[in-house]
Amino acid sequence: MGAGNLIEMCMLRKLIAEFLGTWFLLATIVGSGIMAEQLADGNVALALLGNAIATGAMLVVLITIFAPISGAHFNPAVTISFALQRTINPHLAAAYMLAQITGGICGVMAAHLMFDLPLIQNATTMRSGFGQWAGEFIASFGLVGIIIACLRTKADFVPMAVGLYITAAYWFTSSTSFANPAVTIARGFSDSFSGIYPWHVPAFILMQITAAVLATWFFCWLCKRDI
Amino acid sequence: MGAGNLIEMCMLRKLIAEFLGTWFLLATIVGSGIMAEQLADGNVALALLGNAIATGAMLVVLITIFAPISGAHFNPAVTISFALQRTINPHLAAAYMLAQITGGICGVMAAHLMFDLPLIQNATTMRSGFGQWAGEFIASFGLVGIIIACLRTKADFVPMAVGLYITAAYWFTSSTSFANPAVTIARGFSDSFSGIYPWHVPAFILMQITAAVLATWFFCWLCKRDI
Amino acid sequence: MGAGNLIEMCMLRKLIAEFLGTWFLLATIVGSGIMAEQLADGNVALALLGNAIATGAMLVVLITIFAPISGAHFNPAVTISFALQRTINPHLAAAYMLAQITGGICGVMAAHLMFDLPLIQNATTMRSGFGQWAGEFIASFGLVGIIIACLRTKADFVPMAVGLYITAAYWFTSSTSFANPAVTIARGFSDSFSGIYPWHVPAFILMQITAAVLATWFFCWLCKRDI
Amino acid sequence: MGAGNLIEMCMLRKLIAEFLGTWFLLATIVGSGIMAEQLADGNVALALLGNAIATGAMLVVLITIFAPISGAHFNPAVTISFALQRTINPHLAAAYMLAQITGGICGVMAAHLMFDLPLIQNATTMRSGFGQWAGEFIASFGLVGIIIACLRTKADFVPMAVGLYITAAYWFTSSTSFANPAVTIARGFSDSFSGIYPWHVPAFILMQITAAVLATWFFCWLCKRDI
Repeated sequence: MGAGNLIEMCMLRKLIAEFLGTWFLLATIVGSGIMAEQLADGNVALALLGNAIATGAMLVVLITIFAPISGAHFNPAVTISFALQRTINPHLAAAYMLAQITGGICGVMAAHLMFDLPLIQNATTMRSGFGQWAGEFIASFGLVGIIIACLRTKADFVPMAVGLYITAAYWFTSSTSFANPAVTIARGFSDSFSGIYPWHVPAFILMQITAAVLATWFFCWLCKRDI
Repeated sequence: MGAGNLIEMCMLRKLIAEFLGTWFLLATIVGSGIMAEQLADGNVALALLGNAIATGAMLVVLITIFAPISGAHFNPAVTISFALQRTINPHLAAAYMLAQITGGICGVMAAHLMFDLPLIQNATTMRSGFGQWAGEFIASFGLVGIIIACLRTKADFVPMAVGLYITAAYWFTSSTSFANPAVTIARGFSDSFSGIYPWHVPAFILMQITAAVLATWFFCWLCKRDI
Repeated sequence: MGAGNLIEMCMLRKLIAEFLGTWFLLATIVGSGIMAEQLADGNVALALLGNAIATGAMLVVLITIFAPISGAHFNPAVTISFALQRTINPHLAAAYMLAQITGGICGVMAAHLMFDLPLIQNATTMRSGFGQWAGEFIASFGLVGIIIACLRTKADFVPMAVGLYITAAYWFTSSTSFANPAVTIARGFSDSFSGIYPWHVPAFILMQITAAVLATWFFCWLCKRDI
Repeated sequence: MGAGNLIEMCMLRKLIAEFLGTWFLLATIVGSGIMAEQLADGNVALALLGNAIATGAMLVVLITIFAPISGAHFNPAVTISFALQRTINPHLAAAYMLAQITGGICGVMAAHLMFDLPLIQNATTMRSGFGQWAGEFIASFGLVGIIIACLRTKADFVPMAVGLYITAAYWFTSSTSFANPAVTIARGFSDSFSGIYPWHVPAFILMQITAAVLATWFFCWLCKRDI
């Protein structure tokens, strides 16, 4: 095989890894949300617990297996952060984001398929207001920060760090921590426990990207080694 | 001891490891299902949580301790995947599957014994329909995929990856993720939280094996190193 | 310091480690049982969940920190298994067991102290019958087995393996898995969620020790390396 | 950059790491407490479970990422223990404690901000009495002890050990284990699930510091290597 083909093949694999990883992430978030709400008998804390444990556990697995292929971003805010750090070129970054968003939407459809629900739905869960925006900002700032800090000193721990962080963030942020534009867009297509009313999506994404940019600048400074 | 005897002894140990591992796996799935349902006071989400945590934790332990002996398949779908990859020969693979199925059934009987229930029962829990079959397909595709991907780059993480994945899959798939023909057959003998009506077993197994074959082909391509 | 004093000092530290480890283990089991039952509003599955998570998490920590000092047995059944394997001499083994039992009882008293309860109580929780005895046998057989198997191939994983195994065993065995004579004796002094009626203690201990002996013989054979 | 500036910059980063780590710790403790109580429908065990899982998971992440910068104390009792061991000089120790306390209070305000609550509140949750003081003493003694013991033999495990220990300690101590003067002061400003009536703060802190001093002396002896 020629070198050009090899590079294209390598690119294709990266995009498939981003697509498939985000697909499984959303199937997990939305699927476990549906299951948890159906079974929890009205107790929302219990539903959130099932949702948080499933999402955190799956993130550890997905990042571990796809990191050697694509870096396992699954998150446009993370891809933007790496682009700012010049560890991914802008064209590939754009392709990554497209793969993440389409993968996410297809993952939501897979969750609906498994639970015999309409594949595409009009989400009606209201998620808005200053408190929730602050929640998204803090969640995304922390997420991008821990990825940068871990990669500097303990790269092997990134999958576990992200999984544990998101499990915690489901509980400590008022927005239950979307912290991911692709996840936010995809959840706009699900009228279930994990859904978000589509008109509330843009403000979430604005918070996520602003936080990602600031966290990139701040944590790159904090974790720099001068000597 | 002669070389022939040594090889036979080694073989025997592998089969015992597969038998005992699947035995403990089923004792855990069915035992924790009974315990959880008895105590959960009708709240099925809480029962599923106890069931999922116990199963995931036990899988991590069982795969860790039996992997050096038999590879710790405990799952005919996984054994078929390894046979397709030619890392296990067909005769041993057939013996593995027999050990897994008998181990699983005996493990279910052990769970019933511990809870003073009839050892063999007629399961009546209905688990059928397109949504659940899609759930089994997705669960098995992911399970075989993560095992292949982990073995390529981070083999030490396989036990934790499988444990976390199954914990998540109990929640995000509509079928609560059997993803294992030996587990499916054995659960056909338990009329409890984890049971499955025997006539619904074949469709589940068909989905599991189809998904395992496709995942083997797909992930071997995705994780190949060309350079 | 003379060599004799050094050996005595080393011995003293081992015994203190066994005492303190079992102390913390019982304070955790009984303390979290009291807390969980007080808060769970009658839902026993929820109480068991709090109890299981606390016990499992604490075991990982205690075994990690005390293993380099005493081996972190905290369990006469484990000490007997090591004595059979001749990795601990009988006199030290006897001293270990004494330290474990006294440590366990003091740990129960500490839990009662923290919750403003009488330090020593008459336990009334009935735990008897063939099913529960089978549960204790299986739980102890598995516990000793995983310790032996882990030590052969992945000794660093012992703390995590024991913690995860016990978390699972709280759920899948009908007895909620005492699997430890020192724990069983100590829980005989607590009339709380984790208590056991004292006259039901001997049968549990008989099961635990029988299982430990058989598991030692069986797993030493299973994990032997011939070549 | 001159050497003096470098040292100052390094100092500044340490203090920011302590501030930010304690900030995130308190945002997690108080935020997840508010979320859990709001959703748990009056079931306090369920609220404590969400609170404990979020706090434990976050501690693992925060200690992992900030340990290479500041040592990741986030706790004046831990800083005092290190000062007694002369691994941090008294001036830096004092600055650390100031950063921890201000970081903690700001983290509480962030949690309130996210949940649209008044930023500073008068806590009214009563936490007093001999049992709870014993709980704080035991929790802090264990916390400082495991940090010292882990650092001697398995320093990489400190983040996981602290996260698991605190998860367990939320359940087994009657005080739900504050074990941290900065956390105690900060929680005095929140009238929520995690709050503490300010006049009950001093006794908790007294217990925490006494236990930290005794644990430092005891565990340094227990883990000493003579030969």
